[in-house]
Amino acid sequence: MAGSVFGTLFRVTTFGESHGAALGAVVDGCPAGMSLTAEDIQKYLDRRKPGQSRFTTARNEGDEVEILSGVFEGRTLGTPIALLIRNKDQRSKDYSELKDIYRPGHADLCFDEKYGFRDYRGGGRSSGRETAGRVAAGAVALKLLSELGISVRAFARSIGDFTVPEEITDIDEAANNPLGLPDHDCYLRAAEYIDSVKEEGDSLGGVIECHAEGLPVGLGEAVFDKLDAELSKAVMSIGAVKGFEMGDGFRASCSRGSENNDPFAMDKGRVIKLSNHSGGTLGGFSDGDCLVFRAAVKPTPSISKPQKTVTAYGGEREIVISGRHDPVIVPRAIVVVEAMSALVLADMLLRNMASRLEGIRDFYSEKKN
Amino acid sequence: MAGSVFGTLFRVTTFGESHGAALGAVVDGCPAGMSLTAEDIQKYLDRRKPGQSRFTTARNEGDEVEILSGVFEGRTLGTPIALLIRNKDQRSKDYSELKDIYRPGHADLCFDEKYGFRDYRGGGRSSGRETAGRVAAGAVALKLLSELGISVRAFARSIGDFTVPEEITDIDEAANNPLGLPDHDCYLRAAEYIDSVKEEGDSLGGVIECHAEGLPVGLGEAVFDKLDAELSKAVMSIGAVKGFEMGDGFRASCSRGSENNDPFAMDKGRVIKLSNHSGGTLGGFSDGDCLVFRAAVKPTPSISKPQKTVTAYGGEREIVISGRHDPVIVPRAIVVVEAMSALVLADMLLRNMASRLEGIRDFYSEKKN
Amino acid sequence: MAGSVFGTLFRVTTFGESHGAALGAVVDGCPAGMSLTAEDIQKYLDRRKPGQSRFTTARNEGDEVEILSGVFEGRTLGTPIALLIRNKDQRSKDYSELKDIYRPGHADLCFDEKYGFRDYRGGGRSSGRETAGRVAAGAVALKLLSELGISVRAFARSIGDFTVPEEITDIDEAANNPLGLPDHDCYLRAAEYIDSVKEEGDSLGGVIECHAEGLPVGLGEAVFDKLDAELSKAVMSIGAVKGFEMGDGFRASCSRGSENNDPFAMDKGRVIKLSNHSGGTLGGFSDGDCLVFRAAVKPTPSISKPQKTVTAYGGEREIVISGRHDPVIVPRAIVVVEAMSALVLADMLLRNMASRLEGIRDFYSEKKN
Amino acid sequence: MAGSVFGTLFRVTTFGESHGAALGAVVDGCPAGMSLTAEDIQKYLDRRKPGQSRFTTARNEGDEVEILSGVFEGRTLGTPIALLIRNKDQRSKDYSELKDIYRPGHADLCFDEKYGFRDYRGGGRSSGRETAGRVAAGAVALKLLSELGISVRAFARSIGDFTVPEEITDIDEAANNPLGLPDHDCYLRAAEYIDSVKEEGDSLGGVIECHAEGLPVGLGEAVFDKLDAELSKAVMSIGAVKGFEMGDGFRASCSRGSENNDPFAMDKGRVIKLSNHSGGTLGGFSDGDCLVFRAAVKPTPSISKPQKTVTAYGGEREIVISGRHDPVIVPRAIVVVEAMSALVLADMLLRNMASRLEGIRDFYSEKKN
Repeated sequence: MAGSVFGTLFRVTTFGESHGAALGAVVDGCPAGMSLTAEDIQKYLDRRKPGQSRFTTARNEGDEVEILSGVFEGRTLGTPIALLIRNKDQRSKDYSELKDIYRPGHADLCFDEKYGFRDYRGGGRSSGRETAGRVAAGAVALKLLSELGISVRAFARSIGDFTVPEEITDIDEAANNPLGLPDHDCYLRAAEYIDSVKEEGDSLGGVIECHAEGLPVGLGEAVFDKLDAELSKAVMSIGAVKGFEMGDGFRASCSRGSENNDPFAMDKGRVIKLSNHSGGTLGGFSDGDCLVFRAAVKPTPSISKPQKTVTAYGGEREIVISGRHDPVIVPRAIVVVEAMSALVLADMLLRNMASRLEGIRDFYSEKKN
Repeated sequence: MAGSVFGTLFRVTTFGESHGAALGAVVDGCPAGMSLTAEDIQKYLDRRKPGQSRFTTARNEGDEVEILSGVFEGRTLGTPIALLIRNKDQRSKDYSELKDIYRPGHADLCFDEKYGFRDYRGGGRSSGRETAGRVAAGAVALKLLSELGISVRAFARSIGDFTVPEEITDIDEAANNPLGLPDHDCYLRAAEYIDSVKEEGDSLGGVIECHAEGLPVGLGEAVFDKLDAELSKAVMSIGAVKGFEMGDGFRASCSRGSENNDPFAMDKGRVIKLSNHSGGTLGGFSDGDCLVFRAAVKPTPSISKPQKTVTAYGGEREIVISGRHDPVIVPRAIVVVEAMSALVLADMLLRNMASRLEGIRDFYSEKKN
Repeated sequence: MAGSVFGTLFRVTTFGESHGAALGAVVDGCPAGMSLTAEDIQKYLDRRKPGQSRFTTARNEGDEVEILSGVFEGRTLGTPIALLIRNKDQRSKDYSELKDIYRPGHADLCFDEKYGFRDYRGGGRSSGRETAGRVAAGAVALKLLSELGISVRAFARSIGDFTVPEEITDIDEAANNPLGLPDHDCYLRAAEYIDSVKEEGDSLGGVIECHAEGLPVGLGEAVFDKLDAELSKAVMSIGAVKGFEMGDGFRASCSRGSENNDPFAMDKGRVIKLSNHSGGTLGGFSDGDCLVFRAAVKPTPSISKPQKTVTAYGGEREIVISGRHDPVIVPRAIVVVEAMSALVLADMLLRNMASRLEGIRDFYSEKKN
Repeated sequence: MAGSVFGTLFRVTTFGESHGAALGAVVDGCPAGMSLTAEDIQKYLDRRKPGQSRFTTARNEGDEVEILSGVFEGRTLGTPIALLIRNKDQRSKDYSELKDIYRPGHADLCFDEKYGFRDYRGGGRSSGRETAGRVAAGAVALKLLSELGISVRAFARSIGDFTVPEEITDIDEAANNPLGLPDHDCYLRAAEYIDSVKEEGDSLGGVIECHAEGLPVGLGEAVFDKLDAELSKAVMSIGAVKGFEMGDGFRASCSRGSENNDPFAMDKGRVIKLSNHSGGTLGGFSDGDCLVFRAAVKPTPSISKPQKTVTAYGGEREIVISGRHDPVIVPRAIVVVEAMSALVLADMLLRNMASRLEGIRDFYSEKKN
């Protein structure tokens, strides 16, 4: 499974099973000279951590990160930054009954077919817990972006069929309520909605929206490695995500060219767009506008309602999944979307430096003088 | 711009500007011993070629492919397969007036910012014409898939806000009408709709749906290189695509776990899913079901209605784009979606072979005997 | 520094500075179903560990490995295998005097120029200690190779200008003496030689030879990723290695075609070569013969003799490097050469499976039945 | 065979069989804004071309290059540069007798084993003719290096056992005699030597030495992607090369630390080395000194003396290879060594730009102002 490495110059490898000894990440390619502390990373992990509100599983994961390498006297060395998160609350016995049965909506069956067996404890590598490694690595990328004046902030656009209208986008509010919704009133109503669904033993999905501001024009590479394409891969690689759209996305497919094209104009000597249907990319490059994209998150597959399924031995059975599960994964996935987006942007910022002979010549002639 | 290489084991490099000498692709990693002729590739290029119906630009591109290497006595050698398509109808003068002006919805501005200048003739590398290289390479992947009993077929699910209902999916019909719609009556109505929009000097978008059948369980790699993620990158890298969804996609975000989870059952000794909300992937792996995904295509940005824009020298201007342009790109993009999907699937089929020690041992012990 | 990832399908990322918290490696792409214990890895680390004879530094490094992920119930899961080695004997104060001075033969100056500063404690990431991560990862590859009937064994061909004649290659003996020389008498004489050089405060280099047996014909990829080329990169990436040769290597440059070509013959229904000047590769592929290659190791740069050098502030100075240093690095580098070679061979074994349509078809048709 | 792609940011894909329709290369990642003409490339191809002296095969290959893409109005666009070389003098019948017989010292057997069959005409993809694609791509890299003040020049250090002493290194002379030897008198004597060996129907090898000047300090990435390691892979991937050494290389293994360490000193405010045993790298990074490395080239395997071999059907036979063959490949391989080295250096120059936060911040803040 050579699928746990991400990026070209800013390159991340994650590891760890849900109930193994530890999870973590190694970031290879972070530039030298950036101040970095465990706290810079911990604050993002804390946002992903369960048990912070009544909408998330009560599992106590701790998720304390240790920096094992790549930082010296408080600054990055330019060498690989290894990040370690020990698993504390493993309670493996909870899962033994899942050894020979395939949970609907989960990877269990595919794992057995592909690898011949699996770590059945809590989903193993396919657990949502795997995202701890992404968030740890993404925190390093987010630090780098912030050093360059770039912000990446995600929030919940909808929970189930409850959607916050597009004109309401109070990201500061989203950071303050446990559902990450960009409106306090909407939050209160969505909370009730979740409670009722949870009581039924069912679950919900939702849509996460992400904004990145402060990007230079021209990030992304033409043809296959377009900025949209890389962001899409990054976000679609998060377990529960089933859809991705840039700017107007699927709505653009219903509009006309004359509506969807963003007119250009001049503003204080700079080119601006008079609208942002494109979501901040043109031809696969950042166009200088705010980057806007959305991820569709499916409802949590682990539900306590009875479901039809099969066993590894070919028998049909009913399954009721007990234990601690998020009724909706959206609130905890918000920081994962930020992390994955930041990994793409950091990589693209580094790759973009080699675009022009002129820039390369300037870079090296300064070094010589 | 190191963005024109795609894939890990089945690896493609494309090249070519809209009005340069030629376009093409090099496929490195196609297995040896597969029969391959220019005709195998030409038939896909012909589907992409303009001028085949009143809904596409009248430009006569020819698009004849030549196999330069990698095939000997009718079979692939295991060496790089280079595919060449000469540009014939270049008419460069048409474009000289676009040298210093930025077309809304196009990459012109970003190219100038990133690279310092651009090939302004017909969009250069960012032209839709670039997809000829993808289709040529994709045709090789499609041949490989067909040798393994796998089919990949795409069609138009909607044109503008005209949508063919989900229960109507006659892919054979889609292959026969010039819009690629899976219903003849819908095609007739959509054709009229396009004509009226074209007359207004405006353009439309739409949604392309793709089905892949015959896949083994387990394609895709956990975590970052999930099958969904790779497909998403592949499809989102096509110029006009602004959204991607797997299975129920964005609709899944509004459904409940009890609805969205596909129950498992046994059928003639095999595990099947009783529904396919997942679109044929679980945990990032193919689950044995039909792969179903959709791409949102934006309306063609080149329209003859006047638009506000700016020049390279910082002046505001109005632009009217004359010349030959598709009123809707969807019909010609269908084969590009098939091509990109096939590239992903071919690569994933090769990568998957290394998943288990048992499979590797069998492979090499057979060779020794 | 995106330079700590190695391999395509069997892919390794290492991390760790000499005097940081820990070193380690993540192996992504190891096939599932292989039995693996910490002991499988520890036995190779113990061979690299210092303090085992009078010819190595007395530093007590411990080098106990912990498997953090990727193994469940004693078998590999197909997921990333993270390996952790805590640094124990850090004694940072020893190194503070090296903060502002550049040791001849070391990377100190280059690190400062490239990254702006460096971890000056024991060479940081450029310390020989970095190879612990390689050996840990290589041990996993060596286990995989042994499961497939392939052995990789290295030994010392020479220490300084003391060379064991080519016709003497007792690898079992080499495994038993602390210098890794393939002849006991030679070992005794070389030991004396080292002692005398050490007393002078000076150091020696040598040549390591490696043999790999049991390989199928055809490993390696034509053109850039030839087996020789990949092995060369792998071995030349070890800190002290300054030369690499395959088979007769540099001697081949002085021989004639009629001598250097290995004649083919039949032996029990198989093709064999009547000599092995090629060192087991032809055209970049394994040719079925024993793989034979050699690495030239430079003398340990840390010596206690006074040397001319400069400080970070531009002053000229003399430096005497005190502390614990290997008079010759060859004995401890032997296992590193084995590890790096195994990483290449494991990767090439996996990549080779996708060479032929026939093999792919067999692989997938078996899965379906 | 996914082995025909090379490099990370400056990335090359080559294609073509000896007797197929064409050979060529696609360079993805060359920065925009560099002037480039066919003539810039042709001059290097002409140095590789056979038939230029009595020491090379008389085959008339022509080797005219056409730039198919990536250049507009005389400057690189930042898009892939596709380079095409049509095969002219194919004379396939010469080779039909080699269909079922394995030439000693060639890849024939390995190709059949790995891929099931092969293009037996002139070695197919394993022909020395394959290097035309490398040289074409390398010429682009050499142009980029020259724009940055970096020169790469190779020459013959030895032909067979005839070696030009190290103190004689007149590279200008080497460029003027057909053997590429850095001394005219040596050239005359070596020419006679080759003539006599050729008359015997035998062949010779030799050693190529390469010097690169003008590099900044710090190129290369620590651990696996050391500059030495990448150069080694690049050079060892050339068909006939069997050994590589950096600086003193194998001789360093016999010297002492006190001799092999290069002392540092100050010279006009810069750090210099008082000797260059290291060959211009320390710890895997360029150290600011002249880069010096050597490649051992084996004798041409195609000889007209009778040799023992086997057929594809398992019979033993004698083979006499007739036709046009270089008695020594060294003179024509010199430009291939330059090309491969330039590909590495161009890639490393681009990768190095992302090393420090400070450099990245400067790069982007300038863009904003």
